[in-house]
Amino acid sequence: MIMEEIIEHKRDGLKLTRDEIHFFIENYVSGSIPDYQASALLMAIYLKGMDAEETAILTLEMENSGEIWDLSDIPGLKIDKHSTGGVGDKVSLVLGPMVASCGGKLAKMSGRGLGHTGGTLDKLESIPGFDIYENIHEFKEQIRNVGMAIIGQSSDLDPADKKLYALRDVTATVSCIPLIASSIMSKKLASGSDCILLDVKYGCGAFMKTKEKAHELADLMIDIGKHLGKDVRAEVTDMDQPLGFAVGNNLEVKEAINTLKGHGPKDLFNLCVNSGSIMLTQAKLFKTTEEAKEAILENVKNGKAFEKFVEFVKAQKGDTSYILNPDKFEMAKNIVPIYSDKEGIIKRIDALTIGKCAMKLGGGREVITDVINMSAGIVLNKKIGDKVEKGELLCTLYTNKNEYSEIESETKNAFIF
Amino acid sequence: MIMEEIIEHKRDGLKLTRDEIHFFIENYVSGSIPDYQASALLMAIYLKGMDAEETAILTLEMENSGEIWDLSDIPGLKIDKHSTGGVGDKVSLVLGPMVASCGGKLAKMSGRGLGHTGGTLDKLESIPGFDIYENIHEFKEQIRNVGMAIIGQSSDLDPADKKLYALRDVTATVSCIPLIASSIMSKKLASGSDCILLDVKYGCGAFMKTKEKAHELADLMIDIGKHLGKDVRAEVTDMDQPLGFAVGNNLEVKEAINTLKGHGPKDLFNLCVNSGSIMLTQAKLFKTTEEAKEAILENVKNGKAFEKFVEFVKAQKGDTSYILNPDKFEMAKNIVPIYSDKEGIIKRIDALTIGKCAMKLGGGREVITDVINMSAGIVLNKKIGDKVEKGELLCTLYTNKNEYSEIESETKNAFIF
Repeated sequence: MIMEEIIEHKRDGLKLTRDEIHFFIENYVSGSIPDYQASALLMAIYLKGMDAEETAILTLEMENSGEIWDLSDIPGLKIDKHSTGGVGDKVSLVLGPMVASCGGKLAKMSGRGLGHTGGTLDKLESIPGFDIYENIHEFKEQIRNVGMAIIGQSSDLDPADKKLYALRDVTATVSCIPLIASSIMSKKLASGSDCILLDVKYGCGAFMKTKEKAHELADLMIDIGKHLGKDVRAEVTDMDQPLGFAVGNNLEVKEAINTLKGHGPKDLFNLCVNSGSIMLTQAKLFKTTEEAKEAILENVKNGKAFEKFVEFVKAQKGDTSYILNPDKFEMAKNIVPIYSDKEGIIKRIDALTIGKCAMKLGGGREVITDVINMSAGIVLNKKIGDKVEKGELLCTLYTNKNEYSEIESETKNAFIF
Repeated sequence: MIMEEIIEHKRDGLKLTRDEIHFFIENYVSGSIPDYQASALLMAIYLKGMDAEETAILTLEMENSGEIWDLSDIPGLKIDKHSTGGVGDKVSLVLGPMVASCGGKLAKMSGRGLGHTGGTLDKLESIPGFDIYENIHEFKEQIRNVGMAIIGQSSDLDPADKKLYALRDVTATVSCIPLIASSIMSKKLASGSDCILLDVKYGCGAFMKTKEKAHELADLMIDIGKHLGKDVRAEVTDMDQPLGFAVGNNLEVKEAINTLKGHGPKDLFNLCVNSGSIMLTQAKLFKTTEEAKEAILENVKNGKAFEKFVEFVKAQKGDTSYILNPDKFEMAKNIVPIYSDKEGIIKRIDALTIGKCAMKLGGGREVITDVINMSAGIVLNKKIGDKVEKGELLCTLYTNKNEYSEIESETKNAFIF
């Protein structure tokens, strides 16, 4: 088999065979297929597509390109959750304790933030002392004991995705549904969970710009699950405004704490309860999502969900005094209120702009080597549908930077009346 | 400007701007754009196409990527001729002397053979002592004095094409009409001729498989000429059988000699006379192709065309005693007649198979480093339309190899009744 012929087949719109996909992934990871052949194939896939079966095979080959974690010796069905990423998305921090407090076993591998989207690992690391495991044994031990653990991406898992993602990033082949689906699913499968819940976001702050594209991606990932015999479910949710109020690392942790206590923003709370109830039925702990939902609401009310969060932070060596007393979190030097200069009803809050502004305030990375200021970000005061008077507070900027006038007006313009 | 955006534009079917094409070629040749980005763009061009204007701009940028020869100090219009390559294509060896003997100035840069197609340089080098210039000054001097010169490809000319061609070859992006057109035309333009005649071949032995594709390529190259202000004309000719009888280096030189004396195969002779008469009108030496044709036929009859060939070989240091007495050419050790085992009328002679068999007999290169046996090849005894009896001679194999039984049956099967 030669790589030129594989490229040629996809270029001509043929369906790639299992052998061809296997040959490509094996030899690309080993380095015997060069980047310039891989990128030609990626562009052919981008323009000619891949069906669900091909994508499932690609996913499986990517999964098999590295280590595969075996969580089978932990009792019960292990569940994982993945969001395609958005602005203000602190769902894992809320959802995890909700699910674990009801008996679920959440085994989650998370990433860091880049550009306008944040990363769960960064948010957790804003808790002093918090440790991102690199060791599968500690990770497993904690899932067994606490019911949830969040670990950084292991370099031994899915090396094919790492190489392919870096290449896609510089060859204009990122926004391709079969390639996105196989990238997400191969990592999730390699990290060993039995069931996966996906949150596919759409809108201007999300990867998928339209609801249709988001459904296409969700359906394809569910299909991959079927081909590979895994219980994969998906929600499609909008990102026409940031999720909740807070955008920025420790600001989001504080909001997650409030939400676990039942005092958080409605959109965030509802999304977490809904997702959690689906996950608990996937794990076969509840027969219906209604029963699961009741159990979660009960655990928010009686404090068990919040307690689980404290237990989880403690297990990963985070300083729980910050969780018990969120005022301890470092506060940004400059706190800048943004007032509305018009009145009306808010139609949209450009999540992409809010995400980028939070990044520019110091709360995110423009390039991978940037150091994050954990206290920087934006907290909204208004959401879609809210009536705003002239001079009313729209949001507040948090930053240690001294020059932020441009970001002030940019943030203000993100509110569309 | 960044390369990702250029790839993205072509991926989305946009027309690339002059600045984008300039940026790509300049930075790809300098090495600051890596192969993996170039190959993604090539695949996007393959699948989304390029219009005549884009292709003309690409051609010009490729031409400008290296040295450009200036032949303007040679009196008269300089003409070049290019064939897209075929099996048994010794046209340049016949056409050049025909045109030069009528006052034309042929300035031709030629390549070597690879795979099933031969190369004019290799054919000429089967004449002992023949020297392929690398020096533009000698080349120009000879055009001035003899009226024709054939030179090897200079590494200073069109470095963009060299890099791009090598990349296309391993990324399944060779058979793309705008990329083929820009590759051919940029080299031809850089080598300084005023007018160009193209012979675009189609059929199973040619690069373009169908007449329609051949016309598409021809029309695009004529269009590029118009955009760049050059007199470019094109013929579209079939390659449903090898051209003439001989396939293999010194075998083809001997056939070229016969043809220049008026005793060659009809198809080769007619093609050369037609092409030559077009070139002489392009060079404004004759008003009509009819007058030019008469002049060529006259010079074949009176021996001037053949004399010009001798003069040309002498000027490039070839041993003319071989031209005057072709029996001197080295003869292969094994001469193997292939007889028909059926009877009927020949419908097609698979030129691709004949080309490959001639290569396997030692007459061509499988990889660029192979050494050619100049006496190896195949001489047909029958052509399309000929009636063949059982046991009649179809063709003769010439080889120094001792194992050729497989090639015998393969060659026989190339004759389709």
